[in-house]
Amino acid sequence: MTPFVPGMDDQEFLRDKAVPMTKKEIRILTLTAARIDENAVICDIGAGTGSLSIEAALLAKNGHVFAIEKNPTALPLINANAAKFGVKNLTIIPATAPYGIADLPDLTAAFVGGSGGNLSLIIEALANRLKVGGRIVVTAITPQTVAACLADMKRRDNFRYEAVVVQVSRLRRVGSLDLPAAQNPITIITGEKV
Amino acid sequence: MTPFVPGMDDQEFLRDKAVPMTKKEIRILTLTAARIDENAVICDIGAGTGSLSIEAALLAKNGHVFAIEKNPTALPLINANAAKFGVKNLTIIPATAPYGIADLPDLTAAFVGGSGGNLSLIIEALANRLKVGGRIVVTAITPQTVAACLADMKRRDNFRYEAVVVQVSRLRRVGSLDLPAAQNPITIITGEKV
Amino acid sequence: MTPFVPGMDDQEFLRDKAVPMTKKEIRILTLTAARIDENAVICDIGAGTGSLSIEAALLAKNGHVFAIEKNPTALPLINANAAKFGVKNLTIIPATAPYGIADLPDLTAAFVGGSGGNLSLIIEALANRLKVGGRIVVTAITPQTVAACLADMKRRDNFRYEAVVVQVSRLRRVGSLDLPAAQNPITIITGEKV
Amino acid sequence: MTPFVPGMDDQEFLRDKAVPMTKKEIRILTLTAARIDENAVICDIGAGTGSLSIEAALLAKNGHVFAIEKNPTALPLINANAAKFGVKNLTIIPATAPYGIADLPDLTAAFVGGSGGNLSLIIEALANRLKVGGRIVVTAITPQTVAACLADMKRRDNFRYEAVVVQVSRLRRVGSLDLPAAQNPITIITGEKV
Repeated sequence: MTPFVPGMDDQEFLRDKAVPMTKKEIRILTLTAARIDENAVICDIGAGTGSLSIEAALLAKNGHVFAIEKNPTALPLINANAAKFGVKNLTIIPATAPYGIADLPDLTAAFVGGSGGNLSLIIEALANRLKVGGRIVVTAITPQTVAACLADMKRRDNFRYEAVVVQVSRLRRVGSLDLPAAQNPITIITGEKV
Repeated sequence: MTPFVPGMDDQEFLRDKAVPMTKKEIRILTLTAARIDENAVICDIGAGTGSLSIEAALLAKNGHVFAIEKNPTALPLINANAAKFGVKNLTIIPATAPYGIADLPDLTAAFVGGSGGNLSLIIEALANRLKVGGRIVVTAITPQTVAACLADMKRRDNFRYEAVVVQVSRLRRVGSLDLPAAQNPITIITGEKV
Repeated sequence: MTPFVPGMDDQEFLRDKAVPMTKKEIRILTLTAARIDENAVICDIGAGTGSLSIEAALLAKNGHVFAIEKNPTALPLINANAAKFGVKNLTIIPATAPYGIADLPDLTAAFVGGSGGNLSLIIEALANRLKVGGRIVVTAITPQTVAACLADMKRRDNFRYEAVVVQVSRLRRVGSLDLPAAQNPITIITGEKV
Repeated sequence: MTPFVPGMDDQEFLRDKAVPMTKKEIRILTLTAARIDENAVICDIGAGTGSLSIEAALLAKNGHVFAIEKNPTALPLINANAAKFGVKNLTIIPATAPYGIADLPDLTAAFVGGSGGNLSLIIEALANRLKVGGRIVVTAITPQTVAACLADMKRRDNFRYEAVVVQVSRLRRVGSLDLPAAQNPITIITGEKV
């Protein structure tokens, strides 16, 4: 069987208006930033629809993904999407992070898509569970989250980080024209434990 | 051995000021748009430093990449980068596309990074060599190339396409601050033969 | 009385869901690109809500603005907005451009916000009415309009042009955070008759 | 004489590689955000080449601009640019802000383009000198400055603010093509004293 390559289309996932979903291009860049291998053990904070968790689980086919999500509306969506793609190496943890992180096994990667104001506590908890060489990838929308995450990374002697701001506009065909639909600029911050 | 996941850092490649290189995030999005599997047969038009060809060759470990490049300065760079990463399934074709395309075996994917004004002829030649289900991914910088590529895709009954404009700014740490360095907006157009 | 400086807030204008409005920052850059003075004679093609026409009329207080608009829903909006800001030097022409342009007096500036596929005919008609030193400012959303406008400008010996792509995200306060809302990238092309 | 409208081309200003200059589109949006009238009294912190100060002085023809700049290389540039445009209502204050602000007359507008880490002290000093209805416009490049400025604005009961992120790419003609050159995304934060 050929290995999974990230990049499923957004419409392949079951969605709900009340549950935000990381869009395709940002999901790809987030996944590849984590350098996931087949045995990866991954935590996804703020899993939403589960799109990122599911692509991560498909990449880590001999590993495992722990999806932490506090929104009750999202939980059945993650389950349904996992079932749709035949993903079995995914455990959903209905909790508000950082709760749930301390009990996880050693991690090789973590995603933080929603922090609910607990970003520093979440990164601290993840950093404690992360193996050396492991990576935390934060996708931040607001300037406050971007600045807080960068400050947190700078404080850590055993982390090095890189960051990019990515703004995507998808073109949609309308007759002979192609109309852009701008998506919000997202800052992707990747910290590696050294 | 764990399968390759795209996303090498730009500085891992040998470079030359006279040879443009697709930057990391655009390279990742271009590679994943092509949906390359282990047996992929790929053509990379305007290979430049070979960064895209090499990541493609690592993904298609049982397949092959044909890198067409007209710039003589670039050819030894592609070779040196292939050697650096132990890539053996890569053939360099020193030519100005569309020359060289007609002689290729059936393709499952193609990249067009530089067209030198021959975009329509190149897409026509690639479309003829492409298997059904195969994908052509064009990365366009100028409005002229974007419009020409979209017009070409619209004309083809046996192609469906999608397109995104991506603008990346990389943050660089300067003391306690992080300074953005904006990269040019790139339009990635993916056509699938149906 | 102090002269008018462009930059009214979007919410100061009466709007309608069926009538698109150029957003504040793009409106400012479009207006200033036209180098309007107090005596300017201006044509605004695709006037929409009239926001651009009205700010132009306030700048050209001893001049005149001709707003050409084909959408019947927009016409009373332009009138109502003109009344709201006490603008009297504005004439609405209910027509599909280029109809209506040939009958205008000599112009010092023109805006093209919507072309309905007649871009080349519109620019030709405007170029014929434009005084030497006058400016045509096109705001283009689709790659097709951008490329067509640039091609048109290149063809004209007596025009020089400049162009910028502008992407704006407005931040909206939500508690202690500020959430961006991305607007579509707009290309502003300014041609000056020399 | 017709009133000045902002929007001079970048190349009209004398420049120096060691002195950063706010680019045209950002300068226009910054100037218009300040709602400067003919009698405005303005402080420009981190004046650089003086491009913003000079356009502000031309708008405030019966008012005055105080340009505070700590970089000795920049001071003769500001002087030379003021002379070039016949600007006489501009006073250069060679100082590191917030020094110099407390001694200014009542202000109707202020620009902060460079803060050298003193952003909060600078905004505090400006807020003390600012008349009710006056505006402080901060152009921020780094996430740290954006977040610090937004936090500062939120703390002030007598200020309301708005903010936009603006990313500009200028197109440059190369034969039949137009090549974009991306400029850094800038966040423009405008606080009004109420």
